Amino acid sequence: MNPIPDAQLLDALNWRYATKKFDPDKKIPDATWATLEKSLVLTPSSFGAQPWKFLVVKTLALRAQLVAASWGQTQVVEASHLVVFTLRQNLDEAHIDRYMARTAEVRGATVASLDPFKKVIMGSLDGARAKGFLDVWQSRQIYIALGQFMASAALLGVDTCPMEGIEPAKYDEILGLTGSGFTTLCACPAGYRAADDKYATTLKVRFPLSQVVTHL
Amino acid sequence: MNPIPDAQLLDALNWRYATKKFDPDKKIPDATWATLEKSLVLTPSSFGAQPWKFLVVKTLALRAQLVAASWGQTQVVEASHLVVFTLRQNLDEAHIDRYMARTAEVRGATVASLDPFKKVIMGSLDGARAKGFLDVWQSRQIYIALGQFMASAALLGVDTCPMEGIEPAKYDEILGLTGSGFTTLCACPAGYRAADDKYATTLKVRFPLSQVVTHL
Repeated sequence: MNPIPDAQLLDALNWRYATKKFDPDKKIPDATWATLEKSLVLTPSSFGAQPWKFLVVKTLALRAQLVAASWGQTQVVEASHLVVFTLRQNLDEAHIDRYMARTAEVRGATVASLDPFKKVIMGSLDGARAKGFLDVWQSRQIYIALGQFMASAALLGVDTCPMEGIEPAKYDEILGLTGSGFTTLCACPAGYRAADDKYATTLKVRFPLSQVVTHL
Repeated sequence: MNPIPDAQLLDALNWRYATKKFDPDKKIPDATWATLEKSLVLTPSSFGAQPWKFLVVKTLALRAQLVAASWGQTQVVEASHLVVFTLRQNLDEAHIDRYMARTAEVRGATVASLDPFKKVIMGSLDGARAKGFLDVWQSRQIYIALGQFMASAALLGVDTCPMEGIEPAKYDEILGLTGSGFTTLCACPAGYRAADDKYATTLKVRFPLSQVVTHL
């Protein structure tokens, strides 16, 4: 592993901002986008269970419809790409069985040898399910993906705009998710900032480090 | 902004794994750690409200106590550093006032000029509060921080282990958070993998890209 210099990481994270206006003519090159899709796939998740699907909405008619479900935010159509982050609801044994089968396949093991691992996962999922906490917990994993995606994009010089101010039920309807077991949590347009997006040069506001990082 | 090559990003994300065994003798250099603290501070959040505090637990006696609140996972004491990710519960007007004051300070604006922005934020927070959704929503922001932190660490060649399998109430008690308005969500030891951590060479399991990324 060849680490990047500290300054390059901080430059990218400081360069990143919630892009309000994308340049509709600037498209993310295919190779770069392929890398970002791979970074989504590589996101860590609880037990590695990957309780998600990432929708890359390319059809312009769909993206146009999503604007109205996003309080009119036009980044949804103007950005080069749009990812919708969805949760696999009520994570069940069928999903974990698929995960175990995939694990066996990748690692050259038998599914039976993974049974103790499966039992631990199901015990944890079922415990959360009984408390009504399962989807709350699994939803958090999707935000690990959002965090990794935005950081990855910034490091590749790609702008993003995290969007929670959307109407998930309308997204689900427009994207055909209703009744599928998946539901929209948030969206993230990606592309390149317009030259005249004034927010690009607005100073980033963070509380001083001493107020949010405490040493004990 | 000087982007990194696609391959370097993917190398780092592939190199990352949930480290089960840290080398207790290898410490993260101060400069690298300072960068990682800055990356935490730079995490994006809804409205930029930063509903968090990141606790860096250095006191070994505290870390030893946390092992029992982490189902015996010894990474909590063996890793070079330990970050506990906490949520500022029930985000209120006092917090948003601090945020507006900080925004005015950083951007050289008056607090009064930010009043329309404050009203939008409070309307959104109060709406979520009324639905019992506020802490659920804000908790998700902390996972953006976790995602950005793990990706940042990997890019700097630092190992991490995301830990949700902890007892948050016990963490709160040990770390003096009980009654403070902050509560533990998850923890993340950081440091360097032990040479004999067999999980370092265990193949990473992900569903095929075609199963988790869908183009619409």
